[in-house]
Amino acid sequence: MQEDELCWLGATELGEHIARRSVSPVEVVDAYLARVERLNPQLNAFLTVLAEPAREAARQREAELMRGERRGPLHGVPVALKDIVYTRGVRTTMGSRIYANFVPDENATVVDRLREAGAIVIAKAQTHEFAFGATTNNPHYGPCRNPWDRRCIPGGSSGGSAAGAAAGLCPIAIGSDTGGSIRIPGALCGVVGLKPTYGRVSRHGVFPLSWACDHIGPLTRTVRDAALALSSIAGYDPRDPTSSRAAVADYAAALTGELRGVRVGVLQEHMSEPLDAEVRRLVARAVQQLGALGATVEEISIPSVARARIILVTIVGVDAAAIHEPLLREHAKDYGADVRRQLPLGFGLSGVDYVRAQQGRTRIIADVRAAMERCDVLVGPTAPIPAPAIGQEAVTIEGREYQLMAWLPVFTRLHNLTGFPAVTVPCGHTAAGLPVGLQIGGRPLDEATVLRVADAYERANSDQGRRPPVDEPL
Amino acid sequence: MQEDELCWLGATELGEHIARRSVSPVEVVDAYLARVERLNPQLNAFLTVLAEPAREAARQREAELMRGERRGPLHGVPVALKDIVYTRGVRTTMGSRIYANFVPDENATVVDRLREAGAIVIAKAQTHEFAFGATTNNPHYGPCRNPWDRRCIPGGSSGGSAAGAAAGLCPIAIGSDTGGSIRIPGALCGVVGLKPTYGRVSRHGVFPLSWACDHIGPLTRTVRDAALALSSIAGYDPRDPTSSRAAVADYAAALTGELRGVRVGVLQEHMSEPLDAEVRRLVARAVQQLGALGATVEEISIPSVARARIILVTIVGVDAAAIHEPLLREHAKDYGADVRRQLPLGFGLSGVDYVRAQQGRTRIIADVRAAMERCDVLVGPTAPIPAPAIGQEAVTIEGREYQLMAWLPVFTRLHNLTGFPAVTVPCGHTAAGLPVGLQIGGRPLDEATVLRVADAYERANSDQGRRPPVDEPL
Repeated sequence: MQEDELCWLGATELGEHIARRSVSPVEVVDAYLARVERLNPQLNAFLTVLAEPAREAARQREAELMRGERRGPLHGVPVALKDIVYTRGVRTTMGSRIYANFVPDENATVVDRLREAGAIVIAKAQTHEFAFGATTNNPHYGPCRNPWDRRCIPGGSSGGSAAGAAAGLCPIAIGSDTGGSIRIPGALCGVVGLKPTYGRVSRHGVFPLSWACDHIGPLTRTVRDAALALSSIAGYDPRDPTSSRAAVADYAAALTGELRGVRVGVLQEHMSEPLDAEVRRLVARAVQQLGALGATVEEISIPSVARARIILVTIVGVDAAAIHEPLLREHAKDYGADVRRQLPLGFGLSGVDYVRAQQGRTRIIADVRAAMERCDVLVGPTAPIPAPAIGQEAVTIEGREYQLMAWLPVFTRLHNLTGFPAVTVPCGHTAAGLPVGLQIGGRPLDEATVLRVADAYERANSDQGRRPPVDEPL
Repeated sequence: MQEDELCWLGATELGEHIARRSVSPVEVVDAYLARVERLNPQLNAFLTVLAEPAREAARQREAELMRGERRGPLHGVPVALKDIVYTRGVRTTMGSRIYANFVPDENATVVDRLREAGAIVIAKAQTHEFAFGATTNNPHYGPCRNPWDRRCIPGGSSGGSAAGAAAGLCPIAIGSDTGGSIRIPGALCGVVGLKPTYGRVSRHGVFPLSWACDHIGPLTRTVRDAALALSSIAGYDPRDPTSSRAAVADYAAALTGELRGVRVGVLQEHMSEPLDAEVRRLVARAVQQLGALGATVEEISIPSVARARIILVTIVGVDAAAIHEPLLREHAKDYGADVRRQLPLGFGLSGVDYVRAQQGRTRIIADVRAAMERCDVLVGPTAPIPAPAIGQEAVTIEGREYQLMAWLPVFTRLHNLTGFPAVTVPCGHTAAGLPVGLQIGGRPLDEATVLRVADAYERANSDQGRRPPVDEPL
C-alpha cells in the first residue's frame, strides 16, 4: 500500500491488516513517520516525534507476530499522545517552557494500557500550555494549525492530538478534557473526540489541570476507532484514586448501526445559546437525521445548566491554582501571557466560593440524571463556531462579541461537571470548508450508547470520508 | 403493662405488641409522655414535647388498626427527632436562639418516611447549637445530661436523641452525624447509634452543617431496632441531590447472629491513639469476643487516616461557613460563645485549602476501600473517653491534655470522610458506671454487615440490658 493509503486507514482496519500480515508494523510506522516528516512542519501538531523508538517498537511487534503473538487489537497501530501524558524516557513538556527538558521516569497508565494492546507511540502532540486554554496557540512551541485551514486554530487544549488525527498523522491520538479539551478540537478539526465518564480512564501520570474535571480520552477519525481505543485504555487503576471499578464493555460491539428505540433529547438551553448560523443549520440537520434513522427526538430542558459556566470556572480555577501554586512561586515568568494571567485567579476564590460551586454541581448532576430518565442521549452542537483564525481573541455572533476563551467551551463543560460521557462526531462543513461537530452526551458509564448513536449517524452521513487539504501544496 | 415495662421495650417488640393489639398506640404514647414528664426535667433531653399531636396521632393509629390497617413495622411506635429536623407546624430550633420561634411549613423527608411506617413523633430532641459541637451543652436551652451520670455530658451533637433513647424516653431517636454526632453520644450514653452510608438517608429538610459530611441515622437501644429504623428511613429522595438510588435492604433480616466467615479488621491507627485505659480494655475485650464468636480478626493499617482530622476540619469548616454566612451577617450576637468562635474560621480557608483537603479525602477513600478488600468491617473504639463532666473542656490521657472539641471525634470522623457506614454498639461500662462504645465500620452501602456484626456482639454481651439509674431518685 502507498503511504497515503496506509495513513488514511482507520485503526480498526489497520490493526486487522497487520493481524493478517497484509502489512507489517514496520511498513506502517515508516509510512507514518514519512508523512509526519512531510506534513508536521506545516501543522505543528507534534512536538516530539519518536522516530527511532517507534521503529524499534515496530520491529518488536513484527517479531512478535512472526512468533504468532498479537498483543491486542492495536498491535502495530501508531498512536500520538498529548504532551501532558508522561512517557518514560521521552521528553514531556506540558506545552510549557518550564518542562522543556523534563523526561519522566515512568509511563502514564494510559501509555502502558496502549502498549499492552499493541500500540506504538510515534509522537507527543501539541497542547495548549498546561492544557489551560482552547486555542493551542502555544507561546513556547508555536501555534498548532488546523488541517482544514492552516490559518485557523485546531481548538484545544488537545489541539495537536486533533490535528494529528485529522491530517492522517496517526489513527488514534490521546487527549485530555477538562472543559471540552478533547471535544472542541475534535469538532474544529473534523474528527471524533470522546470524553469518557469521569474515572473510566486512569489519569495516573497525566499532568493535572483539575482533579474534579479532568478526563482522558481518544481522538480518532471514526467512531469505531474511538470505541476500540476506549476498550483498550478504560479500566480500574489502583494508582488513580478516582478510577472506577465498573466493568469495561466491548464498545465496538455496541455499534449496531441501529437507532430504533433510542430516545434523543435536544438540550434546549444549548440550542438557545448564540450560535454561528452555519453551525446551527448543520447541527439541526444532524438531529433531524437521527430522527430519520429511527431514533425518537424530543426537546429537553434543564434550566440549571445555565449555571455550568460559573461553576466550572470556579472549580477548575481553584484546582488549577492549587496544582500550579508551587510552580508559580518559582517560575511565574516562564509561563505564557494568557496562562500567567488566568492561573492566579483561582487564588482569589475562597473555600466558601468553592463549596457553593460544588453544591451547584451536585444540583446539575441530579437534574441531568433526572432529565435522562426521559432520553438516552442529549445532543446539540459541540462548539458554537467553526475554527477561528490563529490569534483571534473574540468572535461576533448575532451582533454580540464573545471572548473565545470563555465561549468555546459553552456546550462542552456541562459534561465535565456531570462527569457523564460525551462524544463529538463530525456533522458537515461550512461553506468555507471548516468542519462542525455534533455533541452526543450520555448516562454515566454508558459510553456504549453514546458511541452507538455517533456511529449510526456517521455511517449515514455522506460527508464522512472528506479529507482536509493537507496533501495539497501550501 | 406498666409504664416502665412498656418504655423499656424495644421498637421491634413494641411494634409487634401493637400489631397483635396486646397494647394500644394510645397506651404507649401515654406511658411515654408520663415518663418524659417525669424524667425530662432532670435530663433536658427533649426541647419540645408534642403531647397533644402525639396523642392525636396515637388515636388515629389505633383507629387504623381497628379497621385492620397497619402502616408498617413502626405503627404506633414513638420516635424523637433531633431538633434540626424540620417538622411541619412544630417549632424547630436548631438548638439556636435565632430559630427559637421557627415553625417549618414542611416535614423533612425522614419525618414523612417515619410516619409512613406508622411512627408517632413525640418530641424534638436537644442538640448542640446548630449541630456544631460534641457536648450538647447548649447555651440557650441548658445542658443536656447523661442518663448514666447527670453530671456528665451525653456527647453530641445528637445528645438529646442519645439521652432520650438511653433513658427510655423513646425507643428510636433520629440524629445527624457530621464528624461523629450520632456515634459519640451513642457511645457516651450506652446506646446503638448508626451513621449509614452517605446518601443512604435523605437529608432534605434537615438543617445542614456540611453538605459533604452530613448523615442522618437512628439511635436506639438495640441493633435490631437500628436496623428496623434504617429500613424505614433509607431510600432515594429526589429532593436530596446526594441521595442514593441503590436498593434498600431488609436490614433486620441480615441479623443472623452468625459471625463465621466475617473478617474483622482492627484499625491500628486508631488503636495506637491515646486512649482512656478503661476504654482500651473494654474495646480490646470486645474485639476478642468477636473472634470468640467465629469472626477472623486481623490488624489493618491505613496510614493516610492520620490526615482525617485536618481534612475533616477543613471541609466541614468551609461548608459550615458557607451555610451560616447569611445568618452570621445578621445574627452573630445570637450565637453561643463556642459556635460563634468556631464558625468564622471557615471563612479564612481558601478554595485551594479546600481542594487539597478534598484530594486528601479521595486518597483516604481509596485507601480504606483497598484495605477493606482484606476485611469486611473495621473496628475500634467509638470515642477515646467515657462521658466527661458538663463544662469540662479538656481531658488528660497518658499525661497529655486534649481539647474535647477536637478530641472526641478522633475515631468517628474517618467514616464521615469516606461516607462509609459505621455503628456504635455498647461494649461495657467503666468502674464509674459510664458506658463505652465499640465502633464498627463497613463498606459503602453494606449497612447489613455492619449491623450483623454489631447484633452478634450485642447478643453475646452480658452487659446488655443494664439500665441507667434514671428511675432512682436524684
